[in-house]
Amino acid sequence: MSKKAVSCPVETTLEIIGGRWKAMVIHELLKGTRRFSELHRALQGVSHRTLTQQLRDLESRGIINRKVFGEVPPKVEYSLTPLGRSLQPVLMAMHEWAVANECELDRGAK
Amino acid sequence: MSKKAVSCPVETTLEIIGGRWKAMVIHELLKGTRRFSELHRALQGVSHRTLTQQLRDLESRGIINRKVFGEVPPKVEYSLTPLGRSLQPVLMAMHEWAVANECELDRGAK
Repeated sequence: MSKKAVSCPVETTLEIIGGRWKAMVIHELLKGTRRFSELHRALQGVSHRTLTQQLRDLESRGIINRKVFGEVPPKVEYSLTPLGRSLQPVLMAMHEWAVANECELDRGAK
Repeated sequence: MSKKAVSCPVETTLEIIGGRWKAMVIHELLKGTRRFSELHRALQGVSHRTLTQQLRDLESRGIINRKVFGEVPPKVEYSLTPLGRSLQPVLMAMHEWAVANECELDRGAK
């Protein structure tokens, strides 16, 4: 994602964790280091191509680390950087809000 | 937005506040009731059509109220519902994270 003028910090955060999969990737990596195949399994429904793109975006923003092991077949592991780990309170707030309002959200979706 | 099976509460919250404009709308309405034209001015760069769609989505999810006054020309006011107002801690967490990590995010974006 290219750098651009952003007027509001909320928008900055959404740029980084928004979209369908990025928050899910961070959420999964908060539990620990994961290989590509493990992430792909955890995020049900994501394509290889999309997951690769999301991981590249997160890496370029300094949210995750990508570590390649010189094995055959190559092994690639993803983990959160300290910056990525600092997103935990944001994800927790999002998690808690949805859990606390589950019933009301169900009504709203009808 | 149609109701669908969602595996994770974080995803539910992102469904509601994600995308380019919804969090901005909620952020603006946390300051008080706004007319359409005021929202349009506050969210620089949004088209009338897109803003209308975002407001409809938020209304259908029970996040905002739309009040029409029988005047000529018609006056329409938007405000947060109690459910919408309860998103404040989520937006605050997003805001605080971006402000706290501004320097690091600038480096990551290069």
